[in-house]
Amino acid sequence: MLFRQLFDPESSTYTYLIGDPITGQAALVDPVLEQVDRDLQLLQELGLSLAFCLETHVHADHITGTGQLRDRTGCRGLVPQGAEVACADGQMGDGEILQVGTLGIVAIATWGHTDSHLAYLVEGDRVLTGDSLLIRGCGRTDFQGGDAGLLYDAVTRRLFTLPDETWVYPGHDYRGQTVSTIGEEKRHNPRFAGRDRSVFIALMSNLNLPNPKKMAEAVPANRQCGQG
Amino acid sequence: MLFRQLFDPESSTYTYLIGDPITGQAALVDPVLEQVDRDLQLLQELGLSLAFCLETHVHADHITGTGQLRDRTGCRGLVPQGAEVACADGQMGDGEILQVGTLGIVAIATWGHTDSHLAYLVEGDRVLTGDSLLIRGCGRTDFQGGDAGLLYDAVTRRLFTLPDETWVYPGHDYRGQTVSTIGEEKRHNPRFAGRDRSVFIALMSNLNLPNPKKMAEAVPANRQCGQG
Repeated sequence: MLFRQLFDPESSTYTYLIGDPITGQAALVDPVLEQVDRDLQLLQELGLSLAFCLETHVHADHITGTGQLRDRTGCRGLVPQGAEVACADGQMGDGEILQVGTLGIVAIATWGHTDSHLAYLVEGDRVLTGDSLLIRGCGRTDFQGGDAGLLYDAVTRRLFTLPDETWVYPGHDYRGQTVSTIGEEKRHNPRFAGRDRSVFIALMSNLNLPNPKKMAEAVPANRQCGQG
Repeated sequence: MLFRQLFDPESSTYTYLIGDPITGQAALVDPVLEQVDRDLQLLQELGLSLAFCLETHVHADHITGTGQLRDRTGCRGLVPQGAEVACADGQMGDGEILQVGTLGIVAIATWGHTDSHLAYLVEGDRVLTGDSLLIRGCGRTDFQGGDAGLLYDAVTRRLFTLPDETWVYPGHDYRGQTVSTIGEEKRHNPRFAGRDRSVFIALMSNLNLPNPKKMAEAVPANRQCGQG
């Protein structure tokens, strides 16, 4: 498998490229509008044809590159079931498997940051967690249908039940960390390790974070595939 | 092997953690002063003991974390042979092999960005290129004994002769790229692909880059292990 982690410094977003060297088919997960040229050039250089753009959720902090990528490549844009994105070409539901050439990507419902968030398990050994589980952190739960109890359940029952050696690739990182494992996060994530559900909910309700700078612009734009 | 790529957003520097799960010994390559607490916490969480800090070269754009890491862990700070760093605990020369527990790190002389630059080949399949070869780019050659001809020779004769599938992990990236391969860089690096030595030298002499913001502070500090 061809696998690349790509970073957008402006929004601290990670985009993931998943490519099948056998068929040349590829998918991008959580592409960022400002990085579309970079991502298309990399696909071309790796000899890959973009078949799918996937979103882990409707983002509030950056505008998706999916609409523009679809216009320029003819790829299909897929969003989580329940996300209000009428322009999408299809939806992924919990447990659904997307074939990218010979590769398999399994959707895992991980609600809580938003009410239709998916993580994607790629080839069984690496999970793209979007804004559910972050390295030593987690996504906020105070807008877009966020729910701290649901996030606790998703992380502890759906992600922490994956094998300890599963690689964790998050949707963001703000401290220069690139990758972790499920075992590491179970032991060392300060939001979850040794905390029960009610303590986690109390913790999340007291974060008092400002809204993302681009939120008023990004959410409506992302409901139109980044072309609002 | 435990292997982690860590990023310092301020200077766009990559630090690498290399850990031997069998003995618990670890090395950091190009640690950044401002990230020492993060790196020590990660070492502790992974159950690793820091044995070595390595520098690819005397940096001009950030201050090394080596001195502080040495004070706090007792590790040895190693620098390339010829680097004017009197406080270092030892030097690495071309072809020397450092054992980190059961792991092997081979130094590869890659002069040109500076006059004592090393790349490090880790366990034979990934090369930490410092500021010699970058992803689709290369280090500048206009100060600190830089020499475009030497850099061309180092990249084309020492790095591009590694197997095509060798992973390339650079010392910096400014476009959100994290990893490449030798084969990819041979084909797609615009500084080298299809360019002969004289064309490369002419190209490098016409970049007209401003000096790094921290240069006046960083170079003297790094000659004192970041504690100048």
